[in-house]
Amino acid sequence: MRNRIITLLTDFGTRDHYVASMKGVILGINPRSTLIDISHQISIHDIQEGAFLLANAFPFFPEGTIHLSVVDPGVGGPRKPILVATSRYYFVGPDNGIFTLALRREKVKQVVTLTNKKYFLSRVSSTFHGRDVFAPVAAHLSLGIRPEAFGDEIDSWESLRIVEPEKKGRELQGEIVHIDAFGNLISNIDENTFFDITRSHHFFIKVGRKRIHGLKKGYWEGNEGEVAALIGSGGFLEISIRERSAQELLHIKRGDKITVQIIERVR
Amino acid sequence: MRNRIITLLTDFGTRDHYVASMKGVILGINPRSTLIDISHQISIHDIQEGAFLLANAFPFFPEGTIHLSVVDPGVGGPRKPILVATSRYYFVGPDNGIFTLALRREKVKQVVTLTNKKYFLSRVSSTFHGRDVFAPVAAHLSLGIRPEAFGDEIDSWESLRIVEPEKKGRELQGEIVHIDAFGNLISNIDENTFFDITRSHHFFIKVGRKRIHGLKKGYWEGNEGEVAALIGSGGFLEISIRERSAQELLHIKRGDKITVQIIERVR
Amino acid sequence: MRNRIITLLTDFGTRDHYVASMKGVILGINPRSTLIDISHQISIHDIQEGAFLLANAFPFFPEGTIHLSVVDPGVGGPRKPILVATSRYYFVGPDNGIFTLALRREKVKQVVTLTNKKYFLSRVSSTFHGRDVFAPVAAHLSLGIRPEAFGDEIDSWESLRIVEPEKKGRELQGEIVHIDAFGNLISNIDENTFFDITRSHHFFIKVGRKRIHGLKKGYWEGNEGEVAALIGSGGFLEISIRERSAQELLHIKRGDKITVQIIERVR
Repeated sequence: MRNRIITLLTDFGTRDHYVASMKGVILGINPRSTLIDISHQISIHDIQEGAFLLANAFPFFPEGTIHLSVVDPGVGGPRKPILVATSRYYFVGPDNGIFTLALRREKVKQVVTLTNKKYFLSRVSSTFHGRDVFAPVAAHLSLGIRPEAFGDEIDSWESLRIVEPEKKGRELQGEIVHIDAFGNLISNIDENTFFDITRSHHFFIKVGRKRIHGLKKGYWEGNEGEVAALIGSGGFLEISIRERSAQELLHIKRGDKITVQIIERVR
Repeated sequence: MRNRIITLLTDFGTRDHYVASMKGVILGINPRSTLIDISHQISIHDIQEGAFLLANAFPFFPEGTIHLSVVDPGVGGPRKPILVATSRYYFVGPDNGIFTLALRREKVKQVVTLTNKKYFLSRVSSTFHGRDVFAPVAAHLSLGIRPEAFGDEIDSWESLRIVEPEKKGRELQGEIVHIDAFGNLISNIDENTFFDITRSHHFFIKVGRKRIHGLKKGYWEGNEGEVAALIGSGGFLEISIRERSAQELLHIKRGDKITVQIIERVR
Repeated sequence: MRNRIITLLTDFGTRDHYVASMKGVILGINPRSTLIDISHQISIHDIQEGAFLLANAFPFFPEGTIHLSVVDPGVGGPRKPILVATSRYYFVGPDNGIFTLALRREKVKQVVTLTNKKYFLSRVSSTFHGRDVFAPVAAHLSLGIRPEAFGDEIDSWESLRIVEPEKKGRELQGEIVHIDAFGNLISNIDENTFFDITRSHHFFIKVGRKRIHGLKKGYWEGNEGEVAALIGSGGFLEISIRERSAQELLHIKRGDKITVQIIERVR
């Protein structure tokens, strides 16, 4: 399942030299690797946001892709550097929950702590494992080194606490987990859960002070300025306003509640 | 004329997972493609701006390059997804005028609506055709699939209304069509039109409340803080202030007028 | 020592078409080159900042990498376009000091002014040498053209004035030379100079109104909100605040002083 693609996701931003240093290290080890940025604009130290964006992007890459994710507030501390092999992909980064959402969609085959210094830069700083540990490990992995060569297998690892939507009587309560650059409000209510509860019922959706009736098929439907609910491209319930930012107009922030309320059975 | 280069231009920004998802899809179909970002910071839904930046970048790429451009406020609606083959390039994106300025510089050979689902992702969302339709089509095209395989040929397509500079007596009236990151004001007055009217005449240029006499050769000429007119790297009349932002100092915005006024014949 | 990697560092930003135009030109000449962005968010015309970020990134790339750096306020003026070959790398850009910090770490073998128009675009603008001169030269260089083919060798070139840390009695005075996206304050005091003066002495570090005792090993050490000094990943003394921005909390800007003060010999 090997290919030469390595994705990068960090909270380093794109102004500083940090991301480029990681890429230089990778290309020094495997000059034929293909490097693809997922995002470097994760909010600083926001593991949750990194986990969300990784989970939404990774399954679109071909099998064998190595996903290198470094949102790492604990760099240099006791948190472990790890490598996760699933049946389709590799994940390399700190063991702080950054892979939680991605791994829920994968079959984990092997998790290894990165201890074999042979695959690190010769001098490892205590402040930049992205460059000194994770990048060289990802590069060696892309050359076909086997996961077990990088260190010992472990059988437990860190996970973020994931807030699941909750069914309470005639209500389904979820929350806004991401707001994208368009101002669309993406919730944690997946389409299956949503259609299970709303099937053959009238319903409305409540977010902030707004009630939304029915579901649109796409952003394009509805009038300009109208608040619309739809199933977004990631398969989750999403609130959007045509040609406008739902975030700005509804004053919603990540973590805010969203509720689906059943009214009555469709006759 | 085939090569493996695919450029990407969107209004998705670089924080979210959207661009990376498109790249993952492309690499899954053609792992040997070379992906080059033109810009992902087109102002949201600003087809005009996307058209401008595409038109300025595309001719510098080698023949056979596939230009994938997704500024797509009408995604999921009746606007057609299209592929345009010119004598030198391919263009893939929504039929909403995004290619208008580029195609004025190209000889169009073939325009095809994308209807053959064989070349889409197996599940097409109604909110993200960049990932589900345009990316896989571009990738298949880069593998050598012929344009006609993607759908039926059409002979009309959408164009933006382009404001041309207008000659009125001793005046040439144009407008500012783009303001770059340096604050340079780029107009729609191309150098040929400009030199045609100013040849062997004295002239001044008016923008906002400012009158500028003569033309500089480059940003470097003139004193710091002096407002200068010059022919920019795209071949259009441009207003700049050495080491400063002309936009900020002159309070100009896109769409504002710029006038070239002939005074008298040079003796 | 040849490879096909070309890095790019500019102050062009990523919204405009400028960087993409340069990449198109390079790929037109060498379609097999690997293009890696170091940064395009150098503050406009800030040669010092460009020099800093280049110096921190370049040594992590494999030997033979071509570093193309265009922060070029004097474009079109008398400043020379140059190519520098060191024992490990190539540098291409304007002769305005942008390579100063990088070259202090390299053994310069050859410096050439770019005068051979054969390796430029056929039409050279006076406003965008990044696209018309530097990009095509870098691309031809990546094809194996020898440095002397691009123009005459020169033996002097521009350098930035570099402020070195200064030892005054029991004090070492340096300054903050870069503030990264995390708000970490990076000084010009390298670890050797630092440990030379502090070895077997108690010391404190003064930055703004803050006194910091001792040195931490990494960002992770210390309490949240505690101001910490450490040796950063570039080998320089750095001030940081765990999980916060030292820049914001200490109100420090680039150029501000940082002082290491010896108190007494450790008993």
